Amino acid sequence: MRAVVMHAPGDVRTDEVAKAAVVEPTDAVIRVTAACICGSDLWPYRGIENVDRPSPMGHEYIGVVEEIGDEVKDIAVGDLVVGSFVASDNTCEICQAGFQSRCVHQVMMGAIGTQADYARIPLADGTLVKVPGTPTAAQTKSLLAASDVLGTGWFAAVAAEAGPGKTVAVVGDGAVGLLGILAAKRLGAERIIAMSRHTDRQDLATQFGATDIVEERGEEGIARIKELTGGYGAHSTIEAVGTQESMAQAIGATRPGGHVGYVGVSHGVELQGQDLFFATVSLLGGPAPVRRFLPELIDLIMTDQIDPGVVFDLELPIERAAEGYKAMDERRATKVLLTL
Amino acid sequence: MRAVVMHAPGDVRTDEVAKAAVVEPTDAVIRVTAACICGSDLWPYRGIENVDRPSPMGHEYIGVVEEIGDEVKDIAVGDLVVGSFVASDNTCEICQAGFQSRCVHQVMMGAIGTQADYARIPLADGTLVKVPGTPTAAQTKSLLAASDVLGTGWFAAVAAEAGPGKTVAVVGDGAVGLLGILAAKRLGAERIIAMSRHTDRQDLATQFGATDIVEERGEEGIARIKELTGGYGAHSTIEAVGTQESMAQAIGATRPGGHVGYVGVSHGVELQGQDLFFATVSLLGGPAPVRRFLPELIDLIMTDQIDPGVVFDLELPIERAAEGYKAMDERRATKVLLTL
Repeated sequence: MRAVVMHAPGDVRTDEVAKAAVVEPTDAVIRVTAACICGSDLWPYRGIENVDRPSPMGHEYIGVVEEIGDEVKDIAVGDLVVGSFVASDNTCEICQAGFQSRCVHQVMMGAIGTQADYARIPLADGTLVKVPGTPTAAQTKSLLAASDVLGTGWFAAVAAEAGPGKTVAVVGDGAVGLLGILAAKRLGAERIIAMSRHTDRQDLATQFGATDIVEERGEEGIARIKELTGGYGAHSTIEAVGTQESMAQAIGATRPGGHVGYVGVSHGVELQGQDLFFATVSLLGGPAPVRRFLPELIDLIMTDQIDPGVVFDLELPIERAAEGYKAMDERRATKVLLTL
Repeated sequence: MRAVVMHAPGDVRTDEVAKAAVVEPTDAVIRVTAACICGSDLWPYRGIENVDRPSPMGHEYIGVVEEIGDEVKDIAVGDLVVGSFVASDNTCEICQAGFQSRCVHQVMMGAIGTQADYARIPLADGTLVKVPGTPTAAQTKSLLAASDVLGTGWFAAVAAEAGPGKTVAVVGDGAVGLLGILAAKRLGAERIIAMSRHTDRQDLATQFGATDIVEERGEEGIARIKELTGGYGAHSTIEAVGTQESMAQAIGATRPGGHVGYVGVSHGVELQGQDLFFATVSLLGGPAPVRRFLPELIDLIMTDQIDPGVVFDLELPIERAAEGYKAMDERRATKVLLTL
């Protein structure tokens, strides 16, 4: 089968590899019908994360179940399914509390790779959610987005306690930040301030529900958010980048007693305890428990209440995956869909 | 009037100073009827915080209103009152959201000093809460505790989302940690694990509601908490120390999706973003908004439902304040009450 493999930073190839197969009796194998490239795939691409050996890429997926292990009960061959970027049993206390991304049996799908013709999905009953009916092309894109970027943006908005009467600031205008705006709007936020300098992303932010755009960054960006909020700062801030600067901006833009939901994979961030202490904001972040939200997100998508799939602005056949990585690295594309 | 003044680390004296007076029209002056020494007073005493010049000490108080400014409306001369260690207007959006310790007009009482015969209380209407009836000697001690250590422990328990069905771990066995146990119990926690090595404090912890004692610290302490909680970790953890070790212990002892309420004044703490990201716990801490809880706490105390005043295990006249500092520094006393 074809699979995208990163051989070194900047060196991504579509290789021919052994077909995915059931290994554990709780596994399923799906025929991937669409995959995509994630902002987090750029960390190794840019050499910020090590690439020790050729690594299978991709952790977002929609597909049709091809084969199931002996212990799989709830998912059947032929089902159209979506799952999160973390496989989870969905039964342990951590899963039951809604934190499936930290399941005691968690398997990171990125270590398996879903930018491929087929993918092995561990803990299939816990991980996969069946899609009812037959999605349109637009719905298929949105379902693929639900697998990570939508689910992650949604978690960030929930973690930031976005809701009625709230002013939400969003740091980061990648796919996750943009879909955090969609989530905040859907959760009833009164005002949504997108921090973005790119006109195409500003447009999408506005389309998803942003009421204000702030182009300033760092201390200036914080000052502007305070100016827009009567000097107080945002009630809720979504952080969707993962750098020292973006975390400082998110915490600084939030009023005391407010909430920061941070989902940008943290790279080189150090928080001073004393700054955090006197900021007096709630911090919740980490790998998003997308599985918690999938049933609701699938329903919202299949009933055309949300259209997160519009974040895909470049579509390439899997053979040309390398071009997709390059386009995202150079910010010529927000989110690249790979067809199979 | 007499006032406790720190002249240098380790050098605390009871000096004769000018009597407190109304400065702003929103001030009140109270005759302090009891004051006390706080664990946080030990930071400068130990030289961990600078003492640039002679500094008035104390930020906890109960007293009788002696004089009010022209704009004070809700508090009258003769009222017996308790207030928080942060003066607040109680009307700004931050106060209204329950974060009075970060009021836009906040005044830290520690900068004014309440280990004295009289104290100026800024923003009297917002800061002070009238005590109904005449407290007994035991109730007076408890009301004094409400001013900081009880209110702070209570906030920590609320921030950690202690409640029915929850297992709460408590890092720190000073007065705040101990009263965090009392708060967690009162909030309905099912199981409360006190981390303590001192038998006298373990006894008080048990009296306040601790169901388990863990003597191990650091990684061993974390392992023990996990062992006691089916491998998951605590749902809720109260951090009441403020060091790198105690924060690491608190975060490590908490299960993914759990909550850490941290109220130990942070000294030299640095949190690695990546560790925090993958811990996936909620963090909320800072100077406790004691004012939020005061009406409820005063009611619980005056109806003898809680007895936090038992944390005071040494009572000294204000002239002998220096002995009290020494006793707390040497851990011979948990909490020292100063009589006037």
